[in-house]
Amino acid sequence: MLVHHLYSGGKDSSLAAWILTRLGYEVKLVTVSFGLLDNWRFARETAERLGFEHQVLYLPREVLEKAAEIAIEDGRPNNAIQFIHEKALEALASLPEVGRVSDGTRRDDRVPLLDLSKARSLEDRFGVAYIRPLLGLGYKTIRELTERLFIVEIRESEELEKADYEVELRHIMREKGLDPLEIFPKRHYQSRVLGWREKGI
Amino acid sequence: MLVHHLYSGGKDSSLAAWILTRLGYEVKLVTVSFGLLDNWRFARETAERLGFEHQVLYLPREVLEKAAEIAIEDGRPNNAIQFIHEKALEALASLPEVGRVSDGTRRDDRVPLLDLSKARSLEDRFGVAYIRPLLGLGYKTIRELTERLFIVEIRESEELEKADYEVELRHIMREKGLDPLEIFPKRHYQSRVLGWREKGI
Repeated sequence: MLVHHLYSGGKDSSLAAWILTRLGYEVKLVTVSFGLLDNWRFARETAERLGFEHQVLYLPREVLEKAAEIAIEDGRPNNAIQFIHEKALEALASLPEVGRVSDGTRRDDRVPLLDLSKARSLEDRFGVAYIRPLLGLGYKTIRELTERLFIVEIRESEELEKADYEVELRHIMREKGLDPLEIFPKRHYQSRVLGWREKGI
Repeated sequence: MLVHHLYSGGKDSSLAAWILTRLGYEVKLVTVSFGLLDNWRFARETAERLGFEHQVLYLPREVLEKAAEIAIEDGRPNNAIQFIHEKALEALASLPEVGRVSDGTRRDDRVPLLDLSKARSLEDRFGVAYIRPLLGLGYKTIRELTERLFIVEIRESEELEKADYEVELRHIMREKGLDPLEIFPKRHYQSRVLGWREKGI
C-alpha cells in the first residue's frame, strides 16, 4: 500500500507522513519544484533525517507564471497557492505508478484546501485515492502530536530554508521586478522539523 | 492522552477508534442511548471483541423527542440524525473528565457531519479537542483499511442489531403511531464488525 505524499519538510506534512506510516502505508515523500531554485533540498534533508524516501516532482514553469499572475491580480497569494497545490496534486495523481496521493492540508487551513467536490473530482479523474490525514484534526491535536514526535527549530524567517510553493513564487515575482512584500504578509517566525523526538517509523 | 470516542459498533467508528490508538491515544468508546432500548449492547459487544473500554452515555429523552419532531416535519431523517449527533458531542464534551472527543464521521457523509464553524464552536465552548480520524479519507481508503483490519458480517437489515441513533428514533416514531418507513429509506443490507482480522491494538 504505497502512498505518494506531497511534502514540504514542514510540521504539517511531516505529521501527515507519520500518520500514513501508522496506518500501514508505505510512504514516498514528493516535493514540488519549478526548477528555479533548489529549495526542495530542505525537504529532502528533513525527509532523510526522518527516514523517508524522497523524490522531486518538477512542474512546468508556466504553472508558476500563471500563479504569479493570479497573485498580482488579487494582491494576495491565497488563490495562487491554491492553484499551485491543485496542479501539484494533479501532476502527481497522473503518474502511472501513483495510486494514492496525500498531503498535509488541515481542517483549519484556508489554503491550500480542496473542497469535497474537488477532492472527489481528483480521485475520479485520475483513479486515485486522495488521503488527508490531518483534515479531521484541529490545531490542539496537531500541536500535541507534533510536540510529541518532532524536534522543531523555530527561527526568524529566512525564506530560502523552506521548500514550500511560496519561495519560488516570491522568486519569480522578483524576477518580474515586483516586490513580494506587497503581496505576501510578512511572517516573522517559521518552523522546521529537524528530526524525531521519539522514534516515529 | 485519553480520547472519548462516539461509537456505534459499525465499521466507520471502529476504524476511527483504531486510528486513534495508532496515533498513540488511549481510547474510551462511548455509545449514546436514550434509555428506550438496550441496542447499545451491540456496540459494547463489538467493543469487547476489539479490546476497547466501553461506556454508555445516556441523553435525555427530550432530545430524541425533538429529533422525531424534526424528522416528521422534514419527511426525512437527515436533520434529525444531525441534531442527535450534535447533542451527543456536546453532552460528551461537557463531562468534566473529557478533554478530547472523537467520532467516525467521514468526508463523504452528508449526515452527521459538523462543518468547520460548528467543529470549532464545539472545541471552543467546551474546551476540548475534536478529532475526526476519517474526515480526510475517501471511500476507497476506508474500504481498504476496514477490509484489512476487520472481520465484517453483512446481512439483511435487522434493525435491533445496530447501536446507531436511528434505532431508537424509529422506535419512538412507532410509539407515536407513525410508520418509520415513511421517513427512513429502506436499507437491505447492513454490516457489523465481528472482530479483528489482523490484531489491531
